[in-house]
Amino acid sequence: MASLQVDAPTNPLVSALLTDLYQITMAYAHWKNKRHNEPAIFELFFRKCPFGGEFAVFAGLDECIKHIAHFSFSESDIAYLRTSVPALSKCDAEFFVWLAQLDTSEVSVRALPEGTLCYGKLPLIIIEAPLAIGQLLETTLLTLVNYPTLLTTNAARMVRAAQRKQIHDTTLPPQCRKLPVCFEFGLRRAQGPDGGFSASKYALLGGFTGTSNVLAGKLCNVKIAGTHAHAFVQSYSCLEEVAHDTLLYPKVLQYRKQLRYETTNDGELAAFIAYGMAFPESFLCLVDTYDTLQSGLLNFILVALALDDAGYKPVGIRLDSGDLAFLSMECANKFAEFARERPFMNDLDILASNDINEHTLNQLNSKPHAITVYGIGTNLVTCQAQPALGGVYKLVEINKIPRIKFSQDIEKVLIPGRKRALRLWDKNNKPIIDVLLQWEEQEPKVGEKYLCRHPFDSRERVLVSPSRVELLHVPIFDKGRVLVTPQPLMEVSRRVELQLSAAPPEVLRADHPEPYKVFVSSQMYRFLHEMWEENAPITELS
Amino acid sequence: MASLQVDAPTNPLVSALLTDLYQITMAYAHWKNKRHNEPAIFELFFRKCPFGGEFAVFAGLDECIKHIAHFSFSESDIAYLRTSVPALSKCDAEFFVWLAQLDTSEVSVRALPEGTLCYGKLPLIIIEAPLAIGQLLETTLLTLVNYPTLLTTNAARMVRAAQRKQIHDTTLPPQCRKLPVCFEFGLRRAQGPDGGFSASKYALLGGFTGTSNVLAGKLCNVKIAGTHAHAFVQSYSCLEEVAHDTLLYPKVLQYRKQLRYETTNDGELAAFIAYGMAFPESFLCLVDTYDTLQSGLLNFILVALALDDAGYKPVGIRLDSGDLAFLSMECANKFAEFARERPFMNDLDILASNDINEHTLNQLNSKPHAITVYGIGTNLVTCQAQPALGGVYKLVEINKIPRIKFSQDIEKVLIPGRKRALRLWDKNNKPIIDVLLQWEEQEPKVGEKYLCRHPFDSRERVLVSPSRVELLHVPIFDKGRVLVTPQPLMEVSRRVELQLSAAPPEVLRADHPEPYKVFVSSQMYRFLHEMWEENAPITELS
Repeated sequence: MASLQVDAPTNPLVSALLTDLYQITMAYAHWKNKRHNEPAIFELFFRKCPFGGEFAVFAGLDECIKHIAHFSFSESDIAYLRTSVPALSKCDAEFFVWLAQLDTSEVSVRALPEGTLCYGKLPLIIIEAPLAIGQLLETTLLTLVNYPTLLTTNAARMVRAAQRKQIHDTTLPPQCRKLPVCFEFGLRRAQGPDGGFSASKYALLGGFTGTSNVLAGKLCNVKIAGTHAHAFVQSYSCLEEVAHDTLLYPKVLQYRKQLRYETTNDGELAAFIAYGMAFPESFLCLVDTYDTLQSGLLNFILVALALDDAGYKPVGIRLDSGDLAFLSMECANKFAEFARERPFMNDLDILASNDINEHTLNQLNSKPHAITVYGIGTNLVTCQAQPALGGVYKLVEINKIPRIKFSQDIEKVLIPGRKRALRLWDKNNKPIIDVLLQWEEQEPKVGEKYLCRHPFDSRERVLVSPSRVELLHVPIFDKGRVLVTPQPLMEVSRRVELQLSAAPPEVLRADHPEPYKVFVSSQMYRFLHEMWEENAPITELS
Repeated sequence: MASLQVDAPTNPLVSALLTDLYQITMAYAHWKNKRHNEPAIFELFFRKCPFGGEFAVFAGLDECIKHIAHFSFSESDIAYLRTSVPALSKCDAEFFVWLAQLDTSEVSVRALPEGTLCYGKLPLIIIEAPLAIGQLLETTLLTLVNYPTLLTTNAARMVRAAQRKQIHDTTLPPQCRKLPVCFEFGLRRAQGPDGGFSASKYALLGGFTGTSNVLAGKLCNVKIAGTHAHAFVQSYSCLEEVAHDTLLYPKVLQYRKQLRYETTNDGELAAFIAYGMAFPESFLCLVDTYDTLQSGLLNFILVALALDDAGYKPVGIRLDSGDLAFLSMECANKFAEFARERPFMNDLDILASNDINEHTLNQLNSKPHAITVYGIGTNLVTCQAQPALGGVYKLVEINKIPRIKFSQDIEKVLIPGRKRALRLWDKNNKPIIDVLLQWEEQEPKVGEKYLCRHPFDSRERVLVSPSRVELLHVPIFDKGRVLVTPQPLMEVSRRVELQLSAAPPEVLRADHPEPYKVFVSSQMYRFLHEMWEENAPITELS
């Protein structure tokens, strides 16, 4: 099979030089000691799921594939390393010759497909490469996986939280019975332009419906949304600033008189009329610039009624401050007053966008509210609740000899060697357990009992009769040949949705979730513990 | 004066399209209502200093200049907006013609110089532009300022915390009396590759000494550092894996016997020998792979002694786990044992790098420690203590008429109109206060008393006799002409250092800092309050 074509990384900063210097010094030390070409296996994984949860959604593989496929040091990179880095100034000139011709033609990669539900200890990406090259890929791959995985997980958690809205009471206005969707609004608060772009992309992967980020819309072909800001309202101070010779203006003034909404803010009303003239088909107004209930809501209704008369269907309102549950209910009740004669009022959206995070979503759900759309920014894009995923990249085998890393902390001990990971599913198509096997081991069989053990705790053992056995890692890269290319974002997003709906609810729940089991085969267990016994230092007491 | 040449933004993602959709919908609404060319003034500022502190360091201006200078919509951007964004599908075709020819030739910008100490309410950047263009710049400028300012401030706070080490006890080893420096090691945990790159750049601006990020080293011409990781140590399992036919190997073995360090880990010793052979002049070892005091420290000493014999000067050790204060003291004491005969041991660095943040730095300072270098990653680059700066961008004037934004929250009220900001300095060259004046007002004079008022609290007034009056905002961009180009990073970094050393200590301190005053002139105060009285809605009670 020929190698597939793959684009260069989206961000040109992603290059062989986007790495820690110690990767290059280590490469030199290996080269100097003639070990740089020893075949090695590295695993990229995390130990603890983020946000106090028990699951994560793997993301970032697309850009990893692009980076690996295009990995090389440019002439100017080599010149910089040779001449401008004091630590490397005494390195043999030959080393730079070697570095200059490096590529990934000896690298093979297996990985979870983008968007796979994943857990602590499960390898996300497995890199088989000459020792020095595997090392040179480390930092960049971690950078390309840590934030996307964290962000996608954060987005998935927020969407789930938003959808835990109570919808049982059928006497409340229709907005109370609509399950909210989430939009990403965080570009301005993201950690750099690329953070903003990645946030938009991976929020969609995690289940967000759209983003305000226009560039993400263009490059990722996803839905973008946005109406106007406080500044737009503020830029109008009186009704004279909006054109009067339109159908809309006199109609709005007529309703204002009729409904006795005459004390609302004039500048705001002018802004809404101007906005309605520009966007009669997607009329959604920010209503809290002056006073949500005394001014913004009423001004919106005036323009919405006039647009309805003209045959347009207004979209809704946005709340950006105050008690969002209370205000949304007040607005929905007001819409309900009009709805008998104006059925479009039943379909109006109520968008809330003030400093939303998973915690406030859960709080909002504790009482009735009428929010139908959330706009989530800062807390989504910066992953405020936990701004970094602790992804690591570890050497597990070299020269076909498995490597173990010792640690006082048992959870930090590595599971050594080349391995396969299987997900075992039950007859209801729910995943039961992930199990790590040694490379050459026999797989568990459908319908047959199979013993899985906790890698470190000898007392934890389970017998599983799987109805389906899924090999988790897919070959991505085989000795330089690209085997898989990036999938359309929305396809991966649907995959994430399917996986989340299949996952055990106790693993996904917000409060006190149960850990999903990532166990090992009994052969792997024996191997790991024999290796441990043989190699771990024994403290001498005297 | 001709326009200066300025590069395109470092990250090609930074473009006119890297914005929120509502900026474009608002631009259309303004265009549709023929208000798009009304002259407007916007201010970019934050209200509250980050990290519970009372200062911030302004950064990000360089990339803002590049963005403004190169601002335009490409043909493919326009095609995307016209054909692929449902919200814009009904816009007049003329609008896109207008959008396609937009540039910033009518835009003027004043800003604080990069690296200026700044405070809540003080405008960082003041944009004078046609209304719609000013709006189209908002999101991108916020993205380009929020994270750099946050990161630079975080870095400056960390460097200050690191340097609060207690150094009075002269009986302790010399490492205890060395003021620590900080290195940035966070690339792998940053929020995207660009987050990583920005973090490295702005950490240096905030006072860090270097970074591990090689690309930042190349592009910003700053010091990069790094030695080896656990994986390097782990890749050796016995002494057979390192070349024996060198000067180093027999010498090390001889010391091992002589000093009776024979139970240290062989693989680790092999790795250190290999590393010493590769980098005899910059020998710094990570000593905690197996056991810091029983193995790593001793193995380091063996190789260091042999290198010293050969005329090289070993650099030091890195600690990446455990009780860093205790371990650093144990290591320094061990070095002191050798130092009488081996003076190089007095100069060895002890680098600590395990999950350092401002809080752990303060904790470490509460007891004696011998850390001379900090490697700071995750908590620096993600600004874990507060992952976003709340920078905002507000319309303060349109058509020469100042605009005010009302808010129940008095601190959210805008200071309206075109203005100048002055920093008043005392005779000891310490800043006393920043004061905002209306544009045409007379400046305070050196040696004369000048009344400054809190903008919102009528009871807070001070009389200041400045020894120096500094106009804070510098013209950056004048009707499309670039007046200032980016300065070398290390020059700006020195500027930050000077500003920090001049700033009032009570403003900078970590515990209960005092707010620095950003006040207004009495003319501005009267204007603001008259405008408020005239325009603020009065709640009717009945």
